Amino acid sequence: MFTQDEAVPGPTKEEIRVLTISKARLKEGFCVIDIGCGTGGLTVEAALQVAPTGKVFAIDEDEKAVELTKINVAKFNLQSTVQVISGKAPEVLLNLPMADAVFVGGSRALREVLRASHQRLKKNGRVVVNAILLETSFAALDEMKKLGFKEIDVATVFVAKGHAVPAGTMMLARNPITIISATKV
Amino acid sequence: MFTQDEAVPGPTKEEIRVLTISKARLKEGFCVIDIGCGTGGLTVEAALQVAPTGKVFAIDEDEKAVELTKINVAKFNLQSTVQVISGKAPEVLLNLPMADAVFVGGSRALREVLRASHQRLKKNGRVVVNAILLETSFAALDEMKKLGFKEIDVATVFVAKGHAVPAGTMMLARNPITIISATKV
Amino acid sequence: MFTQDEAVPGPTKEEIRVLTISKARLKEGFCVIDIGCGTGGLTVEAALQVAPTGKVFAIDEDEKAVELTKINVAKFNLQSTVQVISGKAPEVLLNLPMADAVFVGGSRALREVLRASHQRLKKNGRVVVNAILLETSFAALDEMKKLGFKEIDVATVFVAKGHAVPAGTMMLARNPITIISATKV
Amino acid sequence: MFTQDEAVPGPTKEEIRVLTISKARLKEGFCVIDIGCGTGGLTVEAALQVAPTGKVFAIDEDEKAVELTKINVAKFNLQSTVQVISGKAPEVLLNLPMADAVFVGGSRALREVLRASHQRLKKNGRVVVNAILLETSFAALDEMKKLGFKEIDVATVFVAKGHAVPAGTMMLARNPITIISATKV
Repeated sequence: MFTQDEAVPGPTKEEIRVLTISKARLKEGFCVIDIGCGTGGLTVEAALQVAPTGKVFAIDEDEKAVELTKINVAKFNLQSTVQVISGKAPEVLLNLPMADAVFVGGSRALREVLRASHQRLKKNGRVVVNAILLETSFAALDEMKKLGFKEIDVATVFVAKGHAVPAGTMMLARNPITIISATKV
Repeated sequence: MFTQDEAVPGPTKEEIRVLTISKARLKEGFCVIDIGCGTGGLTVEAALQVAPTGKVFAIDEDEKAVELTKINVAKFNLQSTVQVISGKAPEVLLNLPMADAVFVGGSRALREVLRASHQRLKKNGRVVVNAILLETSFAALDEMKKLGFKEIDVATVFVAKGHAVPAGTMMLARNPITIISATKV
Repeated sequence: MFTQDEAVPGPTKEEIRVLTISKARLKEGFCVIDIGCGTGGLTVEAALQVAPTGKVFAIDEDEKAVELTKINVAKFNLQSTVQVISGKAPEVLLNLPMADAVFVGGSRALREVLRASHQRLKKNGRVVVNAILLETSFAALDEMKKLGFKEIDVATVFVAKGHAVPAGTMMLARNPITIISATKV
Repeated sequence: MFTQDEAVPGPTKEEIRVLTISKARLKEGFCVIDIGCGTGGLTVEAALQVAPTGKVFAIDEDEKAVELTKINVAKFNLQSTVQVISGKAPEVLLNLPMADAVFVGGSRALREVLRASHQRLKKNGRVVVNAILLETSFAALDEMKKLGFKEIDVATVFVAKGHAVPAGTMMLARNPITIISATKV
């Protein structure tokens, strides 16, 4: 089982994780940066897709999140593919290699993080933002346009999951997420 | 404030309540039956629309629900418009007058309740079912067709509400509801 | 039947119209301004609620929209309640009386329109914005906060309607709408 | 570009295709059956995941769909992985090898198709139904329970995509889809 903790957001729910990963168009050998890795749900999924020759750098400023991500990476034997970094974006990005894809969870410094991500991305690299705040959707889209990203895609996803109760199948909603993704020119 | 209790479902959330009531096309003077009234949210709203000359019969087999509905009806001074009945549908419907509209919350005896509701409805009367179970949506639609209802309308409604958090406005999902409504021929 | 035209947006779909109207908390005798009235769907609904003593001012800068709104107002015999104005917000607002509620459809000058609406609103008056653009949701919320509105409410509504096809009931989606409403202090 | 035709449903939209494929938990070497392949969107995606050692059998009773799927399979050079079959389920399933996963698009003979799929599935094989009809969601869930499938999962997915217009980003809804998936015991 995936290890989690009440104080750390995540893991990203299955359906959202699958969609988010697909927007990054990962391939074996790719270099990926996961900013705000939480419990490591996206990190592990990305690592499974880029291993064995690729690399994932998972970043979080929360010590508990760093610890949980390390535990979950170990459970999937992905220690040689993933490097978990305790630190703050955008600063910590400066020391990382050029990436094929960057994932950005919600961030108070979203615009700065996107600018730094743009610098770290290779040509045709992909950036993918998961927004749960109305303001983040707007800011991510606006900043991607300013940075000259191409192929900007906005998808708001509402998922309801069936839950078996004695009387039948109750549909329980997940919170909607807006996934904003784009390609570096 | 509306009085509620953990053991009794409701009150129906504002947006769903508004849509449900609108599907019944209520007017002053109408006679309404609310089957499975819970905390009385729909009962009070319906009563406000049919008062002072109309009537609402609110039914629940749960004693706690009956008690809560009475409290909430009193808060809105609607005691002369609403009669709260402790009992079980479809049996209790037999003793009620012919109605202009019937609301049906989820019910294990849904098909029987719909058949009894059909008998209690005046010509051109409206029936409105709020379904939170996948099976209820199907059964309500299927039974309404069999009973010869016309103008059958199916609307699945997903609502997310903004919730202010320090970083912005988080969109929190309400569970989806399917409203199935129709007119008696 | 409601008269419409391909070149004019509207009428607002039933479910969204019902929710939008409910957010304005209209009562008989209220004065309402509908900015960007389109085919007059909200105008007619609001007029039905504030008539006979209330008043609705319906504004659109598009001549075809003004014409259609007049036709639809006449169909409901609401000419004495509704005044349709050909003009542009925010300018045209200056000559209108103080209002209990203002509806704002999408507008390129949204922030200016909200500022002018704020000036035209009575204390405890309600403003309701229907946003179909991601940017409008953000701008409406942001500007309402800056103007000091209280009780700001954000609701994103997804509706799918059942459509009878030979094999069953196909669920067809309506475009999601975000309704941002608030009360003037 | 994917070749399509107005008379043939599909291709399945990106987000739904990604989620549907993920529910099947495909691996290289797997044998997959795609019933009602339409333009071949799921067929191609599945083939990319099971190639080069796996196999996909794509079935449709519509000649135009069979032709389009063949064209699209060829565009991705997947002819050695995919066999396109003109025929009708459940009959055509009888001659196919045991499968690791079966995809079922909407079908009037859904229950019969599910029964035949159950027989064709290996132990721990996965069945995935994409339902766009309210009745199909119910029937798929009900039949899977009767057939003794385990790990039954129901997910209703609403997606809205951003569409750039002069005034901003309009959110356009895709029709909701319910994905019902399960594992053969």
